[in-house]
Amino acid sequence: MQQRASRAVDGTIIPVKMNNAQSWNPADRFLIAALEEDIGTGDWTSHLLIPPDRTAELAILAQAQGIVCGVPFAQRVFELLDLQIQVVSRKEEGALVQPNDNILHLQGPARALLTGERTALNLLQRLSGIATLTRQFVEQVRDLPAQIVDTRKTTPGLRFFEKYAVRIGGGSNHRIGLYDGIMIKDNHIALFGGEIADAIACARSGAPHTLKIEIECERLEQVAQALSAGADIILLDNMSLDQLRESVQLRGSAPTLLEASGGVNLQTVRAIAETGVDLISVGALTHSAPILQMHMEVIHRAS
Amino acid sequence: MQQRASRAVDGTIIPVKMNNAQSWNPADRFLIAALEEDIGTGDWTSHLLIPPDRTAELAILAQAQGIVCGVPFAQRVFELLDLQIQVVSRKEEGALVQPNDNILHLQGPARALLTGERTALNLLQRLSGIATLTRQFVEQVRDLPAQIVDTRKTTPGLRFFEKYAVRIGGGSNHRIGLYDGIMIKDNHIALFGGEIADAIACARSGAPHTLKIEIECERLEQVAQALSAGADIILLDNMSLDQLRESVQLRGSAPTLLEASGGVNLQTVRAIAETGVDLISVGALTHSAPILQMHMEVIHRAS
Amino acid sequence: MQQRASRAVDGTIIPVKMNNAQSWNPADRFLIAALEEDIGTGDWTSHLLIPPDRTAELAILAQAQGIVCGVPFAQRVFELLDLQIQVVSRKEEGALVQPNDNILHLQGPARALLTGERTALNLLQRLSGIATLTRQFVEQVRDLPAQIVDTRKTTPGLRFFEKYAVRIGGGSNHRIGLYDGIMIKDNHIALFGGEIADAIACARSGAPHTLKIEIECERLEQVAQALSAGADIILLDNMSLDQLRESVQLRGSAPTLLEASGGVNLQTVRAIAETGVDLISVGALTHSAPILQMHMEVIHRAS
Amino acid sequence: MQQRASRAVDGTIIPVKMNNAQSWNPADRFLIAALEEDIGTGDWTSHLLIPPDRTAELAILAQAQGIVCGVPFAQRVFELLDLQIQVVSRKEEGALVQPNDNILHLQGPARALLTGERTALNLLQRLSGIATLTRQFVEQVRDLPAQIVDTRKTTPGLRFFEKYAVRIGGGSNHRIGLYDGIMIKDNHIALFGGEIADAIACARSGAPHTLKIEIECERLEQVAQALSAGADIILLDNMSLDQLRESVQLRGSAPTLLEASGGVNLQTVRAIAETGVDLISVGALTHSAPILQMHMEVIHRAS
Amino acid sequence: MQQRASRAVDGTIIPVKMNNAQSWNPADRFLIAALEEDIGTGDWTSHLLIPPDRTAELAILAQAQGIVCGVPFAQRVFELLDLQIQVVSRKEEGALVQPNDNILHLQGPARALLTGERTALNLLQRLSGIATLTRQFVEQVRDLPAQIVDTRKTTPGLRFFEKYAVRIGGGSNHRIGLYDGIMIKDNHIALFGGEIADAIACARSGAPHTLKIEIECERLEQVAQALSAGADIILLDNMSLDQLRESVQLRGSAPTLLEASGGVNLQTVRAIAETGVDLISVGALTHSAPILQMHMEVIHRAS
Amino acid sequence: MQQRASRAVDGTIIPVKMNNAQSWNPADRFLIAALEEDIGTGDWTSHLLIPPDRTAELAILAQAQGIVCGVPFAQRVFELLDLQIQVVSRKEEGALVQPNDNILHLQGPARALLTGERTALNLLQRLSGIATLTRQFVEQVRDLPAQIVDTRKTTPGLRFFEKYAVRIGGGSNHRIGLYDGIMIKDNHIALFGGEIADAIACARSGAPHTLKIEIECERLEQVAQALSAGADIILLDNMSLDQLRESVQLRGSAPTLLEASGGVNLQTVRAIAETGVDLISVGALTHSAPILQMHMEVIHRAS
Repeated sequence: MQQRASRAVDGTIIPVKMNNAQSWNPADRFLIAALEEDIGTGDWTSHLLIPPDRTAELAILAQAQGIVCGVPFAQRVFELLDLQIQVVSRKEEGALVQPNDNILHLQGPARALLTGERTALNLLQRLSGIATLTRQFVEQVRDLPAQIVDTRKTTPGLRFFEKYAVRIGGGSNHRIGLYDGIMIKDNHIALFGGEIADAIACARSGAPHTLKIEIECERLEQVAQALSAGADIILLDNMSLDQLRESVQLRGSAPTLLEASGGVNLQTVRAIAETGVDLISVGALTHSAPILQMHMEVIHRAS
Repeated sequence: MQQRASRAVDGTIIPVKMNNAQSWNPADRFLIAALEEDIGTGDWTSHLLIPPDRTAELAILAQAQGIVCGVPFAQRVFELLDLQIQVVSRKEEGALVQPNDNILHLQGPARALLTGERTALNLLQRLSGIATLTRQFVEQVRDLPAQIVDTRKTTPGLRFFEKYAVRIGGGSNHRIGLYDGIMIKDNHIALFGGEIADAIACARSGAPHTLKIEIECERLEQVAQALSAGADIILLDNMSLDQLRESVQLRGSAPTLLEASGGVNLQTVRAIAETGVDLISVGALTHSAPILQMHMEVIHRAS
Repeated sequence: MQQRASRAVDGTIIPVKMNNAQSWNPADRFLIAALEEDIGTGDWTSHLLIPPDRTAELAILAQAQGIVCGVPFAQRVFELLDLQIQVVSRKEEGALVQPNDNILHLQGPARALLTGERTALNLLQRLSGIATLTRQFVEQVRDLPAQIVDTRKTTPGLRFFEKYAVRIGGGSNHRIGLYDGIMIKDNHIALFGGEIADAIACARSGAPHTLKIEIECERLEQVAQALSAGADIILLDNMSLDQLRESVQLRGSAPTLLEASGGVNLQTVRAIAETGVDLISVGALTHSAPILQMHMEVIHRAS
Repeated sequence: MQQRASRAVDGTIIPVKMNNAQSWNPADRFLIAALEEDIGTGDWTSHLLIPPDRTAELAILAQAQGIVCGVPFAQRVFELLDLQIQVVSRKEEGALVQPNDNILHLQGPARALLTGERTALNLLQRLSGIATLTRQFVEQVRDLPAQIVDTRKTTPGLRFFEKYAVRIGGGSNHRIGLYDGIMIKDNHIALFGGEIADAIACARSGAPHTLKIEIECERLEQVAQALSAGADIILLDNMSLDQLRESVQLRGSAPTLLEASGGVNLQTVRAIAETGVDLISVGALTHSAPILQMHMEVIHRAS
Repeated sequence: MQQRASRAVDGTIIPVKMNNAQSWNPADRFLIAALEEDIGTGDWTSHLLIPPDRTAELAILAQAQGIVCGVPFAQRVFELLDLQIQVVSRKEEGALVQPNDNILHLQGPARALLTGERTALNLLQRLSGIATLTRQFVEQVRDLPAQIVDTRKTTPGLRFFEKYAVRIGGGSNHRIGLYDGIMIKDNHIALFGGEIADAIACARSGAPHTLKIEIECERLEQVAQALSAGADIILLDNMSLDQLRESVQLRGSAPTLLEASGGVNLQTVRAIAETGVDLISVGALTHSAPILQMHMEVIHRAS
Repeated sequence: MQQRASRAVDGTIIPVKMNNAQSWNPADRFLIAALEEDIGTGDWTSHLLIPPDRTAELAILAQAQGIVCGVPFAQRVFELLDLQIQVVSRKEEGALVQPNDNILHLQGPARALLTGERTALNLLQRLSGIATLTRQFVEQVRDLPAQIVDTRKTTPGLRFFEKYAVRIGGGSNHRIGLYDGIMIKDNHIALFGGEIADAIACARSGAPHTLKIEIECERLEQVAQALSAGADIILLDNMSLDQLRESVQLRGSAPTLLEASGGVNLQTVRAIAETGVDLISVGALTHSAPILQMHMEVIHRAS
């Protein structure tokens, strides 16, 4: 688990390195749009009060305990505003921080530092909140084989960042979107109008052979059907611990993965993991994580 | 207060009407990006399982009590996918819903209905969560003149939608971004390097005459200075109830508005409002509102 | 096989229906860019010679035998130029055409018909060429279980269209890009610096559980290793028919798929399929298909 | 001819220099879109298997004889992914290569080298194929005054690159699109509804005086009419060698250029050039050139 | 001349018809950007004061005498805001208007009418100003063969619109940009470092055969050289009337066009035209035309 | 006044520094679009005549007296084309220039210098024209407290630049667009359907508390009503000097600002300022400023 988290730290699956200063980087595009949303036609306050050549040192500090996440993106926010800003991270991505811990140290043109403050904090607090909650789930099952995975219940527009925060917190990613995996849910079966086995066969016959097929089951007989039909993954939806255990038995040595979903929280997650399922998906990781409070303060004003 | 909410309902300050089918509408751009994020190069599951000419009826139902918000945007998500989808809202924007209340009724091509489900729900749940929390704050001060206002502590990329949800919940908007108001905060003063009065005068001399100037004060003597300097608005930062009351007295009949900020929650908001401040800004409205749970289910499958 | 082709015909995995007139449709974006490339600041010839209210009937005719593909896109090219153009397809997508067969019948404003001619033909001829070549490969193995699949050796910018043409021709798609499948090739292993089994384990531990892992093998002992390590798919690179047969035997009843690649042409494909491999990938489908010649001619000029 | 090719080498008519690292460069835009098409939300394979700090040396080698074209674009593909990649071209743009000749030597971060491989090769092979075919046509008429020119029968989206490859191969460009020249074809005349002379006069009276007017003729009497009407260029469509010779005679010392078109291949081109026409346009240069096979291999792995 | 103006009226060389409601239309893109520039995150005034269902009738009236130009674009501005707005033009494009003449009659949703007012007027006044000035120049030379043409001295971003206004005023267009014609100016010759004849030969040998070559001459001996070298067009820069007349004599019956430029105003244009030059280019048409004053007023308010 | 002008010089309210080489800078986006408009698919003339390695020195010179404005943007135009171009400004932004004064000295690749010439000059001449006219108005009222302000009567697409030029000339900006201020004009009141006081109250109750409310008045009784209703700013539309003076008296010591508008020219502006109004808005600053003539010439040609 430790290793998974640390691997996530060193790579972000962004097509290009952010220091390439190429605005086509998808993370950059998001950060630029976020800056534009706040700055619009200009930050009048900083423009009017701060002379263009004034420099300063500021720090971003934690105000609560948690896992820090989003440091490279916060750093990038300031670089996008002014390449002369020097940003030094005092905490590694994924590190545990305590109140008043210094997370980032910033030095450079004072105007741009003030202009970027809110955008950087808004992102950093939100991603750190997700990583913190993920870490809490992961800690509960640390000695068990089950993996904590996320869902598609992310904030519209922030999926890339939120799934990254889950990895930083030690979790794994479910499929990224509708395009990189096949997931047959109850509504699909209802509108397909056939049996589970037919649905799996239909998907298999037309899909690229590189995609896995996952199917949602609510009852044990559905699990049995899905196993016979050769599903690659079965989502066990809102099942009791007994049902989960029986599903694991039914699976036996088949290569099918079992994923528990529904009713998962910090109180229930360990018992679910102990049933022997391979994966536990938790929507709350991305839709209900409270932010990790931080703020930015002036350390020094140079001219 | 009632009236303010209802006015917000009928207008969204989006430059163009959403039914114009013009993709330059800023709300449309966001919704399209959200759909692209999820759909990528294609929704294989719906594509493979659902014949292109199959139609269906589905409903979006509340799973908890709260204020519904985002109905026109959810509606638009489906229209963007397929203009043949008919969406009927069963609840007005801003209405109180109970568990199992039908919010939206959807009818049309089954494929597109399934493809849009998650994007529509992700947005609807989040905006309804914000409106619900805002309404709770507004209810606490309903009979008092103080207004509940939001902040810039919004999710990057979603400010337009989140500030809209605050209005639907009965709150008012603070400035939208850095471009439509001047707000001199502690970091600005520290890096400006002068007195409060100098900062206000400096801002006034260069700003368009159409912008108001707000200044953050932490102590009563700062409030006095800001009043003398003719600040349009004073942000009273983390002040005690006594300090708030004294600030109101200092203000007297001056046209300056007083805004309380910091330490505001559902337990403290009424006492703060009773001090006589004009505005109470609450960051939690947009950064900490829990989502309002909803789901989508099949009512009927037609061929 | 017949069925696979016909399913492909009815759905194109484009997020939105093309008749939605929404320019965010990815196919539309491509067609618009293609039109802009040709039209630039304006089609002077049509503008100067053809009065704006003149209408006409034109036809697009085949000049050789082959499989027609791209009809909905050609249709869309004209709609994008002028919604008054009526386009009727005389041949279904995927149909066999003979020289002088009428493929499309066009009626409407003469200017826009002339302006769109070259862009529509350039796309239609190219996609029909790919579908025609794919159909030739598919015919060779029609009575065998092996599937003909494409590769990522597509024209930059046209992958969506070219993979669609492969489906119309009766083939199947390999992964669409680097994001929806894991394919460990010889260069990856060389730069990973470990054994095949290590590489598969490393990929498995960090990847979303929804992605399959394919690995390239050149020798039989590598195939054995990959099977032990639980590869989902094995690419058998440039192997002799004997090696392919031995690989099939090694696989036995394991769920791993076997894909033959390299040296595949219309003369060799049947023998390769007879070895029992599941998939045969053919780069030439998209990088070497000759175009299917067509032209457009005036049937009638109305005023 | 030699000189024309070499001039093409030193300039690509791209508005900005590619090393400007400005993503508004039109060639960059295309390359970025091509990379995005392949990479999508991330190259999982390289991300999972290759540590971020690993470096390597790789080479791109020819697998057949031909003219290399697209080196600066292949180079740019890697720079766009990671500015630390060093790319050294072993062959000049337009050089003749033999099987196993080293074309490009690449050194730098291993991940980005693997991620960019397919996009770079797809473009390089295609452009080299076009340059190779063009050179074959040019060689046939090397000692004659006739120029080999391309057409608008290019791949949608790649016109800039394909017309560049024609120049590298020693050919010349026809008009780039509908906006920078007037070309009256048979369909225009049919829908104009008048005589050749009227059509030329009509175009002349409304066009910017800086544009030339070309008209398509199928018969000698049309050529005579076009000459009288002062056409700047006449396209001699599918004419016999005798008709071409008579057209040259009809032209005499008039400033009108004569362009042969239709039925041009490597067997017929020399005889056509010997008729005395000024230009020979060949659609096959861009729509039917077979790719020049290449591949990329690891030379050395550093840590 | 009359005819040329009237042809310009019926076609705008925009790739797609504006009523297609496709935002890829280049004119639409400009209008949308102009609206966004003014509206930003929303028109608070109309939003707050005008109920969403209120409708009204307004008119745009001339306040001075001149040629009206830009009516379809003003119309489009309102359509882009709300498709329910009905716009009826009371004056044809290119018509002469007098003070208080009604130009456009607008009916529909009141909010959108007020939101679009300034953008529509800003464009309409500017284009009408250009058309009015162009018409004044054209009137001076109405009975002479010389054409009045524009230059590239246009407002950045508005070239399409300003060159259109010149056509509406009865003038002709020079080349549209650097890409659709070759113009060798004094700075080019200085940096080329050779003779006029060499420069023309060099341009001729590498350019597409479809482009004309124009060269700037300041002295008669240069004109003679350019004629010998076969220039397609000669720009006679700041020449006296005598020099212009001698240039016309030098040209004789050669097909080269002569364009006078420099020192052209309403007082001098007729004498210049009488020298026999073919074209007179006037930068002031687009860089110095005073606007034609207009305003918009409420006729009727409906609910 | 002097100070206001000089402050404007050092800051342009552009979100990011232009030397960041990030194309998301809004000024960069405009300049890039302007270059693309002129260059299109390539500057054939420079491409054909100037070898890629030739360098040169050129200068931009004033041809008339005026205030220079736009130097950083002209500089940026050349940087965007080729980063090797060195641009040295000989005149500070806002300086007074005389005919033949050297404004910019340019050194670097000759091709890019010629390609950017027209775009740079078109912008520089226009902005300098606006700054020059603004300075003339400002000089008239230099010793009086009234400020000269601009309007929204700007060229579509150039508002940012034109409002910047007004500041460089010593004027102040009115609101930037419809989003950063509330301005109730006669048409708004007519379509609102109520009294001035009602309109102000309605706007006040729904607007962010950070926005000022301005209202247009044509008669003194309206001024009185607006003052009672607490308008933040009153636009005195087309009033006589007597009415202006009476308005100032009516205002007394109220915090409301008074803005005179209509019939303002260089002859009337001083008398208007002497009435005691705070602001004088002048549409002509941006819609009728004549350009300041400049040209570019070769100083030296290096190899």
